[in-house]
Amino acid sequence: MALSFRFLTFTSDYGLEDEFVGVCHGVIKRFAPEVEILDISHAIPPQDVRAGANVLAQAVLFMPSAVHLAIVDPGVGTHRRAVVIGTREGPPLIGPDNGLLSLAAEALGGATQAHEITREDFFLQPVSRTFHGRDLFAPVAARLALGTPPDEVGPAVPVAELVSLDLPKAKVDDDHVHGQVVQTDHFGNLQLNVSRADLESLGIMLGDAVELRVGGKAHGVQFCQTFAEVPVGRLAVLEDSYRRISIAVNQGSASKRLEAHRGEPVILARAPKPGR
Amino acid sequence: MALSFRFLTFTSDYGLEDEFVGVCHGVIKRFAPEVEILDISHAIPPQDVRAGANVLAQAVLFMPSAVHLAIVDPGVGTHRRAVVIGTREGPPLIGPDNGLLSLAAEALGGATQAHEITREDFFLQPVSRTFHGRDLFAPVAARLALGTPPDEVGPAVPVAELVSLDLPKAKVDDDHVHGQVVQTDHFGNLQLNVSRADLESLGIMLGDAVELRVGGKAHGVQFCQTFAEVPVGRLAVLEDSYRRISIAVNQGSASKRLEAHRGEPVILARAPKPGR
Amino acid sequence: MALSFRFLTFTSDYGLEDEFVGVCHGVIKRFAPEVEILDISHAIPPQDVRAGANVLAQAVLFMPSAVHLAIVDPGVGTHRRAVVIGTREGPPLIGPDNGLLSLAAEALGGATQAHEITREDFFLQPVSRTFHGRDLFAPVAARLALGTPPDEVGPAVPVAELVSLDLPKAKVDDDHVHGQVVQTDHFGNLQLNVSRADLESLGIMLGDAVELRVGGKAHGVQFCQTFAEVPVGRLAVLEDSYRRISIAVNQGSASKRLEAHRGEPVILARAPKPGR
Repeated sequence: MALSFRFLTFTSDYGLEDEFVGVCHGVIKRFAPEVEILDISHAIPPQDVRAGANVLAQAVLFMPSAVHLAIVDPGVGTHRRAVVIGTREGPPLIGPDNGLLSLAAEALGGATQAHEITREDFFLQPVSRTFHGRDLFAPVAARLALGTPPDEVGPAVPVAELVSLDLPKAKVDDDHVHGQVVQTDHFGNLQLNVSRADLESLGIMLGDAVELRVGGKAHGVQFCQTFAEVPVGRLAVLEDSYRRISIAVNQGSASKRLEAHRGEPVILARAPKPGR
Repeated sequence: MALSFRFLTFTSDYGLEDEFVGVCHGVIKRFAPEVEILDISHAIPPQDVRAGANVLAQAVLFMPSAVHLAIVDPGVGTHRRAVVIGTREGPPLIGPDNGLLSLAAEALGGATQAHEITREDFFLQPVSRTFHGRDLFAPVAARLALGTPPDEVGPAVPVAELVSLDLPKAKVDDDHVHGQVVQTDHFGNLQLNVSRADLESLGIMLGDAVELRVGGKAHGVQFCQTFAEVPVGRLAVLEDSYRRISIAVNQGSASKRLEAHRGEPVILARAPKPGR
Repeated sequence: MALSFRFLTFTSDYGLEDEFVGVCHGVIKRFAPEVEILDISHAIPPQDVRAGANVLAQAVLFMPSAVHLAIVDPGVGTHRRAVVIGTREGPPLIGPDNGLLSLAAEALGGATQAHEITREDFFLQPVSRTFHGRDLFAPVAARLALGTPPDEVGPAVPVAELVSLDLPKAKVDDDHVHGQVVQTDHFGNLQLNVSRADLESLGIMLGDAVELRVGGKAHGVQFCQTFAEVPVGRLAVLEDSYRRISIAVNQGSASKRLEAHRGEPVILARAPKPGR
């Protein structure tokens, strides 16, 4: 059978300790044996919708055309909606309507339509109240890959009514920028809600010295292109591969060094003395 | 070549830190390049046969028709048998005969036949004494997927002689039930060997208040359908997606809150005062 | 389209917490949708080139014919070379030229040719300075699978100029062997740079008692074939599935017991008194 989408990506906070992810793969394959599942990550911190939204939005632009299934769902089994969202660039998103899909929808050109998932004959029966990944999202995602149009999963939801995330914005003030950590990664790099343009508006160019204030301390660091431009163990500020400003330690963990996690306020300024 | 089983599931305690799981995938693919491997979990606690048996039994009913390979094998390289078990519902199980496969066999309608794996020409040579996953189970599992009948892997073993697990049963006493934790998951939910019928036999219905005694302390909790029916951070008792009673904390970890792990005794009773 | 390599293996220090591995899978699939990706491990300790080289070398001989992609890349974005290495047995290796690929190349019969990856039209544009896995290695690895010959990725590099690792060698002295831990695994087994031949040159045969000196302490242990030959919780020395001597604890962790990690010096000698 020709698939509408050859690929289906899967992002969740299910972890890999249990059978949750494997069971969802199994259910998808029961309905759509030909579809190829690409796992984006299953290590979103439990119930952390914002982290899941960020990871998914960063990943989707690099994936092949696919149904994007994402589940971080603290409200499972309550009245939060389960939705399929169509996007301008084509790939549909499926998951709980709690903001998780909102950044990826933007990255894919914006939501063009949305449908609440209510077609019970599409679900595994009986539907549990606590594992909609298995009983509801996996079988419906499989059907989307097989070619079921989004409007067959349930009634339309106005796009404007979808839950979206209120993202903290960096603020450029005079000679410094107030930002915050939006993501930490496996290496301990701290991704900020600060862009290169923000730094450039302060006159900070590649190679310049920067004053970095975190947790009540100031650090003189260099604005680099990559980790290894500074000595091993040294802090650096760089534009990361998603074009956000990040704080890193060459061959070390900036998160550990600065004891900083998501939400931590960060101030960047031109260093008072060059080469400091 | 037409496969007898398009899918092969894989469960183990190998972890993902090393190349063990990848190497088993590689060996399976060398013999059966067309088979699709579905990983159920590789994070069974090391040597924990009972945890592996539970995870496998919970997963198999949701998977497509498949060869089910499972390896948690503290006795590797000794005289414990390696076996293939045929089941009433069809999918064969392959792994060490130490009880690991027994609950999944029950879930699949019961074992109908068993064969000890002794066909050395099916193995990778030389067979190591410590990595039968790679040298023995992976190549034989691949052959099962390709259509080798179980009776070609070695001599029959009477089904009654297969090792089975002695599972702790809950005991309903008068006005309370004595159970224990059989599994903790990634979210810290505590799955009990208690069924909804056990609670109902005490007159405890959905929405009722329950007294939960764990670790010498009593907690008043609600018997809910899903996590978010109680405030964030609050304990709840619910029927989980496998139809077992579980203890959970809404957006938190019951395991951490109660400092409880597998085997922990738990007593559930009707709350002495409603709404306590 | 017929693939030159049906399989592509992938080893990295990217971890599974973030979208890094999933995004590389996605990029590979965009260019070579038919190729099957076999993950060897993504839990190489961050920037630990030596650990990555060891894991890859141990795995490649068990994998089907494949393009082997490996990324542990502390020098990403600097002048370290990105290379494709052809091997005598056929499968090409691709990754940073920092020694990571060198042990696998030896395992595959030795490098026969090498090419620096410089063909920018093969890369994702713009190429980031910090995520060459996504922007450079994944798309080029996909092309190798599709049949692009290595000499099309860039200029030849003399094989003798490839970076290789300086591996610590065990030293047999009189009546004992000085080795060190080269790898610890998920179970806490300690793999040594000591071979069975080294032990036999000391007259130590299977079943013999061995004196093991680690961290200033001496332990009397048995030279076994498998874990379960000693009581649960007891130390043993055995030849592991890669034919290296390892220290293990039956159903426990030798790494925890001995507080030993990679690089730890270990001395093995015949036990002074039999059966000690």
